[in-house]
Amino acid sequence: MINDYESVRMAELLTEAGITQGGFYFHFPEGKKTVAEEIIVRQDRRFAELRDAAIADADRDGLSALISFLRTIVSEIENDVVMRAGLRLVLQASEHFPEVAHMPHPSWNGAIEAALKKAEAEGSLCLDVDTTIAARGLVLLFIGAQTSSFINDQWESMTDLADTLVDFLRTSIAADGFVPAAQRDDA
Amino acid sequence: MINDYESVRMAELLTEAGITQGGFYFHFPEGKKTVAEEIIVRQDRRFAELRDAAIADADRDGLSALISFLRTIVSEIENDVVMRAGLRLVLQASEHFPEVAHMPHPSWNGAIEAALKKAEAEGSLCLDVDTTIAARGLVLLFIGAQTSSFINDQWESMTDLADTLVDFLRTSIAADGFVPAAQRDDA
Repeated sequence: MINDYESVRMAELLTEAGITQGGFYFHFPEGKKTVAEEIIVRQDRRFAELRDAAIADADRDGLSALISFLRTIVSEIENDVVMRAGLRLVLQASEHFPEVAHMPHPSWNGAIEAALKKAEAEGSLCLDVDTTIAARGLVLLFIGAQTSSFINDQWESMTDLADTLVDFLRTSIAADGFVPAAQRDDA
Repeated sequence: MINDYESVRMAELLTEAGITQGGFYFHFPEGKKTVAEEIIVRQDRRFAELRDAAIADADRDGLSALISFLRTIVSEIENDVVMRAGLRLVLQASEHFPEVAHMPHPSWNGAIEAALKKAEAEGSLCLDVDTTIAARGLVLLFIGAQTSSFINDQWESMTDLADTLVDFLRTSIAADGFVPAAQRDDA
């Protein structure tokens, strides 16, 4: 198994994928780097789309929207090879893609804070929570869970770590008695 | 700048460092992989030693010990090239070192929980905090901050992110009115 960005040889990869070199370099004149950047941008864009859709969902409270979004991206990581490839490239080879490799992308703190401000207005946050600080904390928590599960077992433990994140959110920043929408639906 | 583990050539590295191949392979018969594993193990051991020393310090309360430990490892990352090399190898090339590359090392959750249990007994945690869940959350938060600052700016933002972690700890799991020992000393 060749995992390193640097050591992947484009010619071998194209042969294995049954793609001609002529066709490939017509679409990607700068070769491997362009393909890798495109994968990173797609992963970033997909996560941001899912995030914005979850937060804009008027039927959910702010904290439940964040929890539902977390479950969705965990499932994307498990099921979509482009998501895994994008995350891996950013973790393992960020120096090669300074224009596109960010973790988090600068838009994340503000978007998560918007959901927390909604939760605050709904009365589902502890009183001493600062939404700016909590948004940064939640973003770093997700990055930590994603990185840890990637390094320890190639994301196999990501579902378990997502449960830990939800438990942590409930017992740290959520107001006493907050129940996520998914659990209210089950009842 | 060659950053990738895979693409570093031992002969070039030894020439640059002024080390003979004979001397090197006498000490490290298996070459590059053995050196990398030794760096990872040293980084892991050093962080665990600093952690255990901070938590064992009887003059500090549990939460202040964790905060002081966080400041210490941030300074280690900034000042010690072996710490940076160890973290980088685990983040970027964990597949090559399955025996030693863990994030976190399995000992971390239990050690951080011990400090939180001390904090709980001292009355400095919110009442609804579960120390097992909170320990896992704090470990993932640190991993997230470390990974994010590595990817975005080679750890330059690590000090700022450590401030965010302390603010988050104060406003999420710490009891109202908790003041870290370092700030009490300043007053």
